[in-house]
Amino acid sequence: MVKAAILGATGYAGAELVRLLSGHGDVELVYPASHSYAGKKFSDIYPGMRGVADMVLREDDIEKAAEEADVIFLALPAGLASAMVTGDILRKAVVIDIGADYRLHDRAVYEKWYKTEHHSPELLAYAVYGLPEIHRDRIPGSRLIANPGCYTTCSILTLYPLLKNRLVETSGIIIDAKSGTSGSGRGEKLGSLFCEVNESIKPYGLVSHRHTPEIEQELSEAAGEDIALQFTPHLVPMNRGILATCYARLRSGVTESDVRDAYSMYASEPFIRLIDTPPETRFVKGTNTVDISFRIDGRTGNIIAMGAIDNLVKGAAGQAVQNMNIVFGLEETEGLAAGAGMPF
Amino acid sequence: MVKAAILGATGYAGAELVRLLSGHGDVELVYPASHSYAGKKFSDIYPGMRGVADMVLREDDIEKAAEEADVIFLALPAGLASAMVTGDILRKAVVIDIGADYRLHDRAVYEKWYKTEHHSPELLAYAVYGLPEIHRDRIPGSRLIANPGCYTTCSILTLYPLLKNRLVETSGIIIDAKSGTSGSGRGEKLGSLFCEVNESIKPYGLVSHRHTPEIEQELSEAAGEDIALQFTPHLVPMNRGILATCYARLRSGVTESDVRDAYSMYASEPFIRLIDTPPETRFVKGTNTVDISFRIDGRTGNIIAMGAIDNLVKGAAGQAVQNMNIVFGLEETEGLAAGAGMPF
Amino acid sequence: MVKAAILGATGYAGAELVRLLSGHGDVELVYPASHSYAGKKFSDIYPGMRGVADMVLREDDIEKAAEEADVIFLALPAGLASAMVTGDILRKAVVIDIGADYRLHDRAVYEKWYKTEHHSPELLAYAVYGLPEIHRDRIPGSRLIANPGCYTTCSILTLYPLLKNRLVETSGIIIDAKSGTSGSGRGEKLGSLFCEVNESIKPYGLVSHRHTPEIEQELSEAAGEDIALQFTPHLVPMNRGILATCYARLRSGVTESDVRDAYSMYASEPFIRLIDTPPETRFVKGTNTVDISFRIDGRTGNIIAMGAIDNLVKGAAGQAVQNMNIVFGLEETEGLAAGAGMPF
Amino acid sequence: MVKAAILGATGYAGAELVRLLSGHGDVELVYPASHSYAGKKFSDIYPGMRGVADMVLREDDIEKAAEEADVIFLALPAGLASAMVTGDILRKAVVIDIGADYRLHDRAVYEKWYKTEHHSPELLAYAVYGLPEIHRDRIPGSRLIANPGCYTTCSILTLYPLLKNRLVETSGIIIDAKSGTSGSGRGEKLGSLFCEVNESIKPYGLVSHRHTPEIEQELSEAAGEDIALQFTPHLVPMNRGILATCYARLRSGVTESDVRDAYSMYASEPFIRLIDTPPETRFVKGTNTVDISFRIDGRTGNIIAMGAIDNLVKGAAGQAVQNMNIVFGLEETEGLAAGAGMPF
Repeated sequence: MVKAAILGATGYAGAELVRLLSGHGDVELVYPASHSYAGKKFSDIYPGMRGVADMVLREDDIEKAAEEADVIFLALPAGLASAMVTGDILRKAVVIDIGADYRLHDRAVYEKWYKTEHHSPELLAYAVYGLPEIHRDRIPGSRLIANPGCYTTCSILTLYPLLKNRLVETSGIIIDAKSGTSGSGRGEKLGSLFCEVNESIKPYGLVSHRHTPEIEQELSEAAGEDIALQFTPHLVPMNRGILATCYARLRSGVTESDVRDAYSMYASEPFIRLIDTPPETRFVKGTNTVDISFRIDGRTGNIIAMGAIDNLVKGAAGQAVQNMNIVFGLEETEGLAAGAGMPF
Repeated sequence: MVKAAILGATGYAGAELVRLLSGHGDVELVYPASHSYAGKKFSDIYPGMRGVADMVLREDDIEKAAEEADVIFLALPAGLASAMVTGDILRKAVVIDIGADYRLHDRAVYEKWYKTEHHSPELLAYAVYGLPEIHRDRIPGSRLIANPGCYTTCSILTLYPLLKNRLVETSGIIIDAKSGTSGSGRGEKLGSLFCEVNESIKPYGLVSHRHTPEIEQELSEAAGEDIALQFTPHLVPMNRGILATCYARLRSGVTESDVRDAYSMYASEPFIRLIDTPPETRFVKGTNTVDISFRIDGRTGNIIAMGAIDNLVKGAAGQAVQNMNIVFGLEETEGLAAGAGMPF
Repeated sequence: MVKAAILGATGYAGAELVRLLSGHGDVELVYPASHSYAGKKFSDIYPGMRGVADMVLREDDIEKAAEEADVIFLALPAGLASAMVTGDILRKAVVIDIGADYRLHDRAVYEKWYKTEHHSPELLAYAVYGLPEIHRDRIPGSRLIANPGCYTTCSILTLYPLLKNRLVETSGIIIDAKSGTSGSGRGEKLGSLFCEVNESIKPYGLVSHRHTPEIEQELSEAAGEDIALQFTPHLVPMNRGILATCYARLRSGVTESDVRDAYSMYASEPFIRLIDTPPETRFVKGTNTVDISFRIDGRTGNIIAMGAIDNLVKGAAGQAVQNMNIVFGLEETEGLAAGAGMPF
Repeated sequence: MVKAAILGATGYAGAELVRLLSGHGDVELVYPASHSYAGKKFSDIYPGMRGVADMVLREDDIEKAAEEADVIFLALPAGLASAMVTGDILRKAVVIDIGADYRLHDRAVYEKWYKTEHHSPELLAYAVYGLPEIHRDRIPGSRLIANPGCYTTCSILTLYPLLKNRLVETSGIIIDAKSGTSGSGRGEKLGSLFCEVNESIKPYGLVSHRHTPEIEQELSEAAGEDIALQFTPHLVPMNRGILATCYARLRSGVTESDVRDAYSMYASEPFIRLIDTPPETRFVKGTNTVDISFRIDGRTGNIIAMGAIDNLVKGAAGQAVQNMNIVFGLEETEGLAAGAGMPF
C-alpha cells in the first residue's frame, strides 16, 4: 500500500486527486493538507465527498508529509514548490509536482515566463518531465516528477508524432486551445464568476501564456531543433475539458499514410485513442484519456491535428496518478476511469 | 459472473447502465441491444466509451436476450416492456425494468396516467417496486423488478420517514421538483434543443405528470392512508440532477428531534447521506447517492424536506445495478461510485 | 429632459440601469457613480457599453448627485441608502431606491430580517412601495420610492389577484422560487464562481430569506389580514430570470372562471401578459414583462400560480425606470424593451 | 414607411429579424412568412414576442410578398432563394438574402462547396455583397443584396485591413472560429440537443466549411491576389456569439503602427469598435457591433487578429437591417441596439 500526501488538496486539481486516490486500490491517502482549510474535514469543503473523504486536513508542511508518506503530490501555486522541495525531502519521499516549478529545464526560461524566482534550481537536473507517453522510460526510479500542465499535455501529445518524424515544418506552428473554467482555479476572482464566464468565449494570455515554453521545450526536443510556436488559449463556458486545435504545414511529399504511421506510436497507449472524427471534450470528461485525430487539407497544405483531454484528469490529477503508478510499479491504469459517461 | 442484457442500451439511461456495468467486477454485458442502432458498435453511438464498450449492438429481442443472459435490463419507452415480458421470460432471466410498466400496482391507474394499454397486467402482482431503502427485503428472489422513476426515487426517499412516522399532515403535501435535461431523453425534439433549454427554467407537466401516482402509491403505503399530493416538475439548464423541494405541514407537537429520529432510519444506508445544509445536485452527480436534509419553519409550521439525486444513476441505471446486486447476492455497492468529483 | 444620477452604477442592477437609460429618449444620465470604480470610465468596467456609456464614474456622493440630478437611483447594499437619504435630499431630487431600505413599512421588521440598523426610520412613512401594477396611484408626486425586490415583484404580482379577491386560503401558501445567478450580485464570492454554480441547482436562504416579509407585507395588505407564507429560493445555472411557482388552496366554491376574472385586473397592464402555458424565464429575458399563468388541480384542490420576470429588469432596473416614468409624467413604457429575442 | 416581408421568419435568424424590425421606427412588417408555421401567429412560435409580434404567418410565397412589400428578406436554407428570385421580383421589391445563394460571384464555386445547383446564376452579376464596412458604396440602388454569413462577416472584417494594406503574407492564414449553438439553427437534430452540446467544445466542418470560399473571395479581392486559407469552426456551449481568432505572418518590416493605421479605416464605422483587449462575445451580444483587436508576437513574427460578433445580429438579421437602412436611405443605425447589457 503506497502512502500518499497531497499539499494543496482543496484546489480543483488537488481535490480531483483526492477523488481519484479514494478509488485507488493500492494507495492510502495519509496526509491530505491545505493551507486555507487545515483543521477542517475535506468533505466540509467538498461535500460531494461526504462519507468518502472525511479526513481532517493538515497543514501544508512538506517535512511532516515526508515523514508519513511515500509519495507527496504538490498542487500549489507557482513558486511554492521550488521553495519546499529539498534533497532531504526527496530522500524520504517521491515528489510529484502538479505545479510548474520543475517542468522547464532552464531556470532562466522559468523565471522569465513565470516572473518569479526559482528557489531550488539545483534540482532541475533531477526532475523528470512526467509525460509517460513520451518519457515513460525515465519515470521509474525518479524521485522528482514534474507533472505536465493541462494545455501542454494536450498540445504536446497532439503534435509530438508530427515533429518527431519531421512531417511538418517547424516554423509557423499554431496551437489554438480552448479550456473549461476549472482551469482558472478556485480563487475568488471577478473573471471567474458565473455571470462573467457564462454565455461567452474569449482569448486570453495572448503571446505570453506560461505554457508556451513548456510546449516548445518538449517539441523542440522531439524535433531536434529549437521551435517557437504560437499558443493562444481561450476560456469556454464549461466546467472541464481542453481542446487543442493545432495547425502546421506538412513537409513536401508527406502523405496521409506517413502521418498515420507516425501516430501509430500511440497504438498501444492505454490512455490515447486515435480517432477518425474531430475530438470533443465531453468524450474524455472525467477520464485520463486523450482523444487525437488529424485532417490534412490538400488545398492549403496544412495538417490540422486535434487533441482533447480533461484538464483536471489527464491535465493534472489523473496524470499524476499515472506517474505514481509507474514509479511504484503498479498497473499504469489503476485508479483511472476508462470510459466517459454521457451526458455528464 | 452475472450475464447481463440491456434492451434500449442507447438511450441516456441505457447508456449510463452500459457505463456502470463496464466497471462492475462481477457482471459481463453479453447482450447490449438497441432498436435504432442494432448492428453498430455501442462506442460509435457513444464515442466516450471507445476502447471500453465496443461491442456490436443487437436487436431489442427479449427472447434472445433471455437465452444468453441471467438478468435483462429494460430501458424502453412506456408500454413496450409490458408487451415483451412473459412468465416464460421470467423463468429464464430476472427482468429489471427501468421503465414505468410495472411500477404501479393498479393497472387502471397505469392506463389512466400513461394513456396506453398495459399488455401484461397479470404480472403486476409479481413485480417488486425496487426501491431498496424502502423495500429491500422484497427484492432477493424477485424475478421482476420495477425500477423506480427518477423524480419518484428522489421524492419518496425524501418524504418517506415523515409519512411512515406520521409526523406530517397527509393533505397539502407539495413536491416542487427540478430536473436536468437528460431526463427528457435523447429524442430529437424541439424542446430539447440547446438553444431552447439553455438560459431558462420552466415548469412542465402540471397536475398531470406520470410520476405523481407512483409517488402517491408509495407514500400512501407508508402512511397507511390514501394520499393525493401536488407534484410539479421543472426543467433546469444542466445535464443531470434532480432536486425535490418538498413541503408538508408538521403535525401538532412534532419536534425537530422527532424528525431527526425518523430520518435516522437511513443512518446505515450506503447510498443515503443525511446532511445539515440544503442539498445541491452537483454533490451527487455521477453517483448513486441521495443527499437529504430538512428544515422546520416555526413561523409557518411547515417542514421543508429536500432531496437530491443524479437522475441517470440513482434515478435510473445506478438503482438498477443496486437492485441487481441485491437479487444476485452481490455487494450492494459494487460498481457504483461513491463520491462526486467537483466541478463535474 | 430628466437628469438622472445612479449611485452604485457598477453592480449588475446599476449597470442594467445605465443600459436602459442610455436608450431612454427623455433622460440624461448626468451623475453615474460607483464607490469601487470612481474615476474610471463606465465602459472600462462594462466593455459591452464602449461607445455608448463612456462617461467617467463619480463618487457615491448623494449630496452632489442631488445638486445635479432630478432623480437619484440608489443601487446599494442594504443599510447604505437609509444612512444617505434625508429630507433635504428629497427636497432636491426624487429618490428611487432599488435596494431594500424603504420597502418594509415597519422598521422593526426590517431590522429583524436584515439584521442591521435602519438609519432613517422617519422617512418610512413617506416612502411609496413602487410596484406600479398594485400601487400606481400612489407613485405620482412621490419623492421616495422603494423599488420592490426581484423575488418579491414576481411573487406578489403572481399571487395578488388571488388574495385580493379572497379566492385562496391565506394559510398554507408556498412560493418555490428560482433565480438566475445575477441575483447573487457581482461580488467575488466562492459560491458565485462559474464552477460552483454551473451544472447544479440548490435551495438557499431557507425560512430566512429577506424577501419573505416584503411579500407578506404586500399580500397581507391585499388580503386584509396577516399572512405568513413559505418562501424558498433556489439558485439556477443561468444568468438572468426569476420563476415563482406558487401554491395555494382554493377556497371552497371558487371556479376557474372566478380566477380568470381576478387576473383580468391585469388585462390592460403594459408589462403583464396573462398566458395559457407555464411561463419560461427566457420569454421575458431582457424585458420588463411579467408572464403569469395558473393551473387548478381538481384532484388536490390547489391552484398553482406561476410568474416569470427578468430579475435585473422588472426585478430591478426596469421597474425603477417604470417608476421614474410615472413620477415624471413620461410614457410608462418609455425606454423599456417590449419583446424578448430568442435564443438570448 | 418601408414595407417589409420575411420569408423564413421562424428560424432563429428570421425571428431575430422580426424582433429587430418590431423596434424599427421606419419599417412595417407586412408579410411575415413561414413554410412550417403558416397560419399560426408568430408569437405562438416565439412566445417571448407575445403582444409585440402577434401577426399571422403567411406562406413562403415570394410573388405575394413582392406585391405587398418594398423589401423582401429571405432567411431560407441554401438553394431555395436562387429558385425563387427572378428579375421580375427584383423589379417589384428589393431582395436581401440572408442565405448564401448570391454571396459567391462564381456559380461553379457555389455549386462545388454547397453541393447543390444554383437556379438563377444570371442574377449573380447583379447581386451586391452586403458587407457595408467594405462595400458600402455599392449598396444604394442595389436590388439584390447578398447578406454575408456569420463566420464570414466576423472573419473578413477582422482580416480585411491587413490584406488590403499588404501587411501580412497571403499564404498561411489561419482562422480558428468559435460559434454559439444558434448558428446550427432550429432544426431537430441530435447534435443540437442540450445534452449533446452542453459542457463540451468541438471542431466541425474541417477543411470543408461553406464559409471558406466566401471569406477567400472577399479577402482575395482585398489583397489583389488569390488567397487560400484555413478556416476551422468550433461549436461552443452558448446561445449566441462568434469569435474569430485569426493568425497571419506579418510581412517583413511591418510595424505595430502600420497595423494600427490600417485598422483606422474603421475609425468612424458606427458598428466597429477597435479595442485594446481581446474581444469577448458577451460584449457584443444582442448588438450589431463588431469588436476587433490585434496582437503582434515579436517572437514568432505572427499577428493575431481577433473579432467578435453576435451571429444572429451582425452575422445575420442585424446586418440585413443595416443593408436595408442603406438601400432605403434611412439612418444606418436605425433599429439596431448599441450597447450590450451584462450579464445577458
